[in-house]
Amino acid sequence: MSSYLVTGAGRGIGLELVKQMAKQPPSKVSVVFAATRGEEAPNALKKVIDSSPPGRVVHVSMVITERSSLDKAASEVEAKLGGGRGLDVLINNAGVMPSDVEGIAKMKTLRYALEVNVEAPQETTAAFIHLLNKGKEKKVINISSEVGSISRTHKYIFSPTPSYKISKAALNMLTVQYAQAYAEEGFNIFAISPGWLKTEMGSEIADLDVKVGAEATLDIIFKSTPETTNGTFQNIRVPGWENAEGPNKYDGEILPW
Amino acid sequence: MSSYLVTGAGRGIGLELVKQMAKQPPSKVSVVFAATRGEEAPNALKKVIDSSPPGRVVHVSMVITERSSLDKAASEVEAKLGGGRGLDVLINNAGVMPSDVEGIAKMKTLRYALEVNVEAPQETTAAFIHLLNKGKEKKVINISSEVGSISRTHKYIFSPTPSYKISKAALNMLTVQYAQAYAEEGFNIFAISPGWLKTEMGSEIADLDVKVGAEATLDIIFKSTPETTNGTFQNIRVPGWENAEGPNKYDGEILPW
Repeated sequence: MSSYLVTGAGRGIGLELVKQMAKQPPSKVSVVFAATRGEEAPNALKKVIDSSPPGRVVHVSMVITERSSLDKAASEVEAKLGGGRGLDVLINNAGVMPSDVEGIAKMKTLRYALEVNVEAPQETTAAFIHLLNKGKEKKVINISSEVGSISRTHKYIFSPTPSYKISKAALNMLTVQYAQAYAEEGFNIFAISPGWLKTEMGSEIADLDVKVGAEATLDIIFKSTPETTNGTFQNIRVPGWENAEGPNKYDGEILPW
Repeated sequence: MSSYLVTGAGRGIGLELVKQMAKQPPSKVSVVFAATRGEEAPNALKKVIDSSPPGRVVHVSMVITERSSLDKAASEVEAKLGGGRGLDVLINNAGVMPSDVEGIAKMKTLRYALEVNVEAPQETTAAFIHLLNKGKEKKVINISSEVGSISRTHKYIFSPTPSYKISKAALNMLTVQYAQAYAEEGFNIFAISPGWLKTEMGSEIADLDVKVGAEATLDIIFKSTPETTNGTFQNIRVPGWENAEGPNKYDGEILPW
């Protein structure tokens, strides 16, 4: 009976995470706050809300790059949880992957990527930390990417997304800083690489259907404990992909920084 | 007979690097461009300029967070080098280490640290890359910190500088992105952790005198080759500190990310 908040819930893996959580028994997932930028839920999310039991999926309007908007959303979520209850799990999923096809010396998107992929998760976590502290699970999951593993950069030379790679490395360090700072209070804060998924961001040539990636991501989140995941960088596990030849392998192991 | 440019040359290790380079034989160091923010060189740098052979140390005014200022400085350096000569070595040294003593959820300095420690080295390298490409050495050194090693965060829990740690992890990824992008053109781009030094930034309780840190840093820079250092994260080597007990060890090994 845990409560979840997912950012970037209007499309891609964020939307799919919400969809799959909405289908869990209420004993497992009591409510999913699905955050998107607009005042109204986008149509795809509306459909999920309408096809779920009443109150199971709740849209929250939240501009993650504006702290005042985040604080307002945190108050709304607190009121909706009611009874002094906390938020159990925050999934910082919203992110951008800009391309810089003219090369790194002409990179124009560094500030933008840092704002959305690093500063926004920082402010989101900060805005919700008091509610999370009242929660039973105290989990914060930052959706990162193996592309942000500095040790594995050789695998991703083909991808003209330096600002994304830099921002995800920074997000990983942010994750570890939070994990260390809140370990004593029983928090469980970690990063997940959800795989290369067939979404708008990942394109049609990606490895995995978004459903597969979301399922594997939720599997980690549900099973995670402070002892096993706090301060780590988790790779999803997908049957058949544990020993894949190509660049990507989804073996459920901890990824190197 | 190589030309160098050092940012943040007004104090700390930047100033010390300039001092020590100025004492090298002209066969090794022909000119050091010492960049600081102001129109005039700060007094400590003026003293180094005045006590060096004429033309050996040249002050350059450069605001590293403003691209137009960097481009103007690059034109000045190009003119001063003359004869179509390139710049041989760029040392991105300028940086900030803000504290956030109220904890990471109240961190106020993330944007500032990312701007100065990540975006500014990006723009500086970008502004000088055409000049470096005409140089003989094609070296870019980013002054990082072991504190930015995500693998080693457990060593530095005591330091309330999360924004610094995040920015240096991001700088390390920026460094590797450049190293990969320019490897074929013969560049040698890497990060150095110059040790915990007794400077204004490092405080009086630091491990090493700034002279020792600068000397060990220069030793790496002078000896570095694309084969040995491109895309790596170098620890300085200081005799007597190779097997130090405390958190810090200066053994000249490659640091983990």
